[in-house]
Amino acid sequence: MVVLDELRVPIVQAPMAGGPSTPALAAAVGEAGGLGFLAAGYLTPERLRADVDALLALSTAPFGVNLFVGGGEPADPAAISAYATRLAAEAERAGVALGTPRFDDDAFAAKVEVLLAVRPAVASFTFGLPPRDVVEALRRAGVEVWVTVISPEEARAAAACGADALVVQGIEAGGHRGTFVDDETAAGLSLLPALQLIAAEVSLPLVAAGGIATGQALAAVLAAGARAGQVGTAYLLSAEAGTSPAQRAATATDTPTVLTRAFSGRLARGIANRLHEEHAAAAPRAYPEIHHLTAPLRAHARAVGDADLINLWAGEAHRLVLALPAAEITRWLADEARAALDAAAARLALRR
Amino acid sequence: MVVLDELRVPIVQAPMAGGPSTPALAAAVGEAGGLGFLAAGYLTPERLRADVDALLALSTAPFGVNLFVGGGEPADPAAISAYATRLAAEAERAGVALGTPRFDDDAFAAKVEVLLAVRPAVASFTFGLPPRDVVEALRRAGVEVWVTVISPEEARAAAACGADALVVQGIEAGGHRGTFVDDETAAGLSLLPALQLIAAEVSLPLVAAGGIATGQALAAVLAAGARAGQVGTAYLLSAEAGTSPAQRAATATDTPTVLTRAFSGRLARGIANRLHEEHAAAAPRAYPEIHHLTAPLRAHARAVGDADLINLWAGEAHRLVLALPAAEITRWLADEARAALDAAAARLALRR
Repeated sequence: MVVLDELRVPIVQAPMAGGPSTPALAAAVGEAGGLGFLAAGYLTPERLRADVDALLALSTAPFGVNLFVGGGEPADPAAISAYATRLAAEAERAGVALGTPRFDDDAFAAKVEVLLAVRPAVASFTFGLPPRDVVEALRRAGVEVWVTVISPEEARAAAACGADALVVQGIEAGGHRGTFVDDETAAGLSLLPALQLIAAEVSLPLVAAGGIATGQALAAVLAAGARAGQVGTAYLLSAEAGTSPAQRAATATDTPTVLTRAFSGRLARGIANRLHEEHAAAAPRAYPEIHHLTAPLRAHARAVGDADLINLWAGEAHRLVLALPAAEITRWLADEARAALDAAAARLALRR
Repeated sequence: MVVLDELRVPIVQAPMAGGPSTPALAAAVGEAGGLGFLAAGYLTPERLRADVDALLALSTAPFGVNLFVGGGEPADPAAISAYATRLAAEAERAGVALGTPRFDDDAFAAKVEVLLAVRPAVASFTFGLPPRDVVEALRRAGVEVWVTVISPEEARAAAACGADALVVQGIEAGGHRGTFVDDETAAGLSLLPALQLIAAEVSLPLVAAGGIATGQALAAVLAAGARAGQVGTAYLLSAEAGTSPAQRAATATDTPTVLTRAFSGRLARGIANRLHEEHAAAAPRAYPEIHHLTAPLRAHARAVGDADLINLWAGEAHRLVLALPAAEITRWLADEARAALDAAAARLALRR
């Protein structure tokens, strides 16, 4: 992989749609030697194009853009209505109207057109396989195609579809599960087993995602054979991230994370809060309908600082995250990873 | 830690109660430079003593013994009866009588007496904290005390109780969750996040357990700061292990693992099979009562080779396990780990 081979630092900044990802964050990580990423999810094509322009004004480093792959079928309207009824009291208390729960594909085709025009180093895909013609068009345009996978089955499918590299997401990762099929009973492998099982079947370069909050964990995934670690939560407290103040405060606590469907209708890992606790058991599998339904409630909560109504996406090790500039976080992770690998290799060598 | 410091190979063989652990397996791992372990769980004190004697006849290498810490309260008899009624048809089909669902502490005190007499290098504890007087007596006898933990909270408690080292068990591990409190809602951290979070709070040496099926994963946990990896599933297909033929066959497949309470009344990770699929949702939290209830059914199934009724404990990466002598597995894991650390360190150094 040209892009992974050329990084000075084996860190891929995770695309964090919905606020935390910003051009400034991608630029800072890229300038520090990692691979910055823009999160196209939920953006209009015009806003994506504007974010790319903003990033290009800040940095000439290679960067990636992540797209959500729409798919599946609209959910049962009755299940969505029932959940909307359940959330009505929350909305009334907050003084906002719930959103319209529509099914859409997040303007996939139009965003692909943006990528073909701006030609980032990498286009990564989450929630499914990109269509083969999209893969071919991007590769012809000189854009590497990465696909997020959670299991050996998904890895095989992504390889067959022409992916250049795989982002292997473990169950410890914050944010939405990147799986092709949103299903509690689907494989929920932890990162190290997922890396081992996928490396045994697919020879593509792997980027490891999930729970990497320290240089020691970055060293671990590199030792496990990943070409880089994908790091998201570790940047949530950087000044460059668009993390809301309430989410920043929650990230610095030791409140455990949970897998929840309460906010978007799709399983995602976030810090436990009241909306999850009171409503997750009733939340239907209905993405992106529930995302749109709860969007005004979450926007209001971010504005007024009510962490109990915000989707507090975070990986399992979020308590360890540092509030530093993104470039310093990048260098700190890389330096600690080097030291950890050297120390472990030296300890083993002593025993030879 | 004297014991961990002196190992030629940073591998601790996981104690696998209920059959797979044998004196021959512990001896082979110890002779290969790792730390062999006997699993005292479910054994009578006399049988434990006999196993120790058998091990001592095979090897002079240091070894450990794992004890289950009893605790909690007997479960609701009505819930146990309901589950017994549910399993009656299974027992009838198999032609065996279900066991008597009794509550006991697995002869904890008597087994501690055995350990004080035979003085293994390490006594490790699972399912709870050993009483402080037991910790003190063992340490006076020159026996290191290790405690299995799954969260920072348990790690702090184990440190306060005088543990010499902690076995950090990730959610990907096969067999029973080692947690002090058997509860689905308790922290289910993956191994890398657990190692990071616990290392940030406790300065004791850590042994990493869960999903380590390859040298790459062993290298990963060493890079993450663990002093050794605890490896169980990786030995299931060795000739020295007491693994039943039906479990050997299941281990070599890619059938996913699940967390299940169906076999013992306590959450454990095993390869999915019919007993789990049909009964787990109804299984009460009742350990060790359900263990005793299902024991004859499981013994029968092992004897006749019916994998659908056996507790097929295995970690998430079980498909990668090799059928080799235990000494070869030990050396293979260590050699691959060294190569993985060297390769990762070299790749990073190129970028300095």
